[in-house]
Amino acid sequence: MKQVKALVFDVFGTVVDWRSGVAREFASFLPAHGRPDLDPFALADSWRKLYQPGMEECRSGRRPFTRLDVLHRESLEKVLAANNITGASEGDLDHLNRAWHRLDPWPDVLLGLSRMKRKYFLAPLSNGNIALLANMAKRAMIPWDAILGAEPVQAYKPQPEAYLRTAELLALKPEEVCLVAAHNGDLRAAAKAGLSTAFVARKTEHGEGQAIDLSAEDPWDWVGTDFVDLAAKLGCS
Amino acid sequence: MKQVKALVFDVFGTVVDWRSGVAREFASFLPAHGRPDLDPFALADSWRKLYQPGMEECRSGRRPFTRLDVLHRESLEKVLAANNITGASEGDLDHLNRAWHRLDPWPDVLLGLSRMKRKYFLAPLSNGNIALLANMAKRAMIPWDAILGAEPVQAYKPQPEAYLRTAELLALKPEEVCLVAAHNGDLRAAAKAGLSTAFVARKTEHGEGQAIDLSAEDPWDWVGTDFVDLAAKLGCS
Repeated sequence: MKQVKALVFDVFGTVVDWRSGVAREFASFLPAHGRPDLDPFALADSWRKLYQPGMEECRSGRRPFTRLDVLHRESLEKVLAANNITGASEGDLDHLNRAWHRLDPWPDVLLGLSRMKRKYFLAPLSNGNIALLANMAKRAMIPWDAILGAEPVQAYKPQPEAYLRTAELLALKPEEVCLVAAHNGDLRAAAKAGLSTAFVARKTEHGEGQAIDLSAEDPWDWVGTDFVDLAAKLGCS
Repeated sequence: MKQVKALVFDVFGTVVDWRSGVAREFASFLPAHGRPDLDPFALADSWRKLYQPGMEECRSGRRPFTRLDVLHRESLEKVLAANNITGASEGDLDHLNRAWHRLDPWPDVLLGLSRMKRKYFLAPLSNGNIALLANMAKRAMIPWDAILGAEPVQAYKPQPEAYLRTAELLALKPEEVCLVAAHNGDLRAAAKAGLSTAFVARKTEHGEGQAIDLSAEDPWDWVGTDFVDLAAKLGCS
């Protein structure tokens, strides 16, 4: 068994249910802005669809590193414009944009992390920015030991720098850091950078008809059915 | 009363008693390396004396930003050489260098912070690097909401960027962030950058004969006798 000292976590999808959380906020925003006819889940999906293209501008070097709150705000305005939603105040827009700061963990997360925390150093390795991740953690009492991720290392996953610089910030070797993620692609990039890997499937991240990431596609170092199961497999009971 | 949302803390001296902690580690290192005759507190003071000059190389631009663990290691080697201590293994040196990761909080800190945490966002704003601050917090159960400081903003206090970029990482206005420190100079720089300020005296940080920072030298927004008293003055009981 590899000598892992820190567990770092993908957050959107792996730790928190972003789709239900964002849809919940649209469910109160839409009627208040004259569009009760629209499906809150469809708007959550539309917003999320602009996530990778926004980061890709930074990864490609066409744009300097820009924190996710800013990218989220730009993509939110595009989604609202595409759906002819106008007249929201700056306060309303800012509040809705921070829906990503108010996402809830999947039901197994807090118990699993509280067990892992006894033996491992725990931190998010998310493309979310520090304020987003820290506000989320404070609200949901997620017991991180530090708030890491794209912003402190100024690189978006799956760029290798996002994984390698995070290990460096922790003063650990890459293999001493294990990425926990529900996404095989994220784990592939982490493994390529030399990190250890653990997979937990989140089969309804994208809703009932989800077709991707239903199971581990490579021989990851650990595979858990949820965070409590993964904690046990990592020797934390 | 100012609308403060986050409390950020100087750490060495304000939150933890660095001098006793470092001396404690020298007290076991020195006899093991043939120098039981040396005073552990004197070595702690010598090490600390190289702290500001090391950072000044980075502040001045003569050297790119370099994390404190590296500066500490360089200054440790100078202190050992100046005292003719030779032959320590790489493992011994690395362990001693991480004495700064194992410092204990002053006795009022955990109770005070646990009260402040209910109402405010809490983070260190220290010149210590992320791994140092996070390892310290995990060991001592300091309940930070995020690990901030010089490393994520790539600037050493009292550079204005250290304060301003920290507020930006928190997505707050400078005045919504209050620096808590036992050092009037740190508070002066924070106030100049627009932050709110709170002073708590640590009258034995430098030992019994301490001559500086025995009291508030400017009209700081809050002054507490310790963290429990400050929590009460900040409306947290």
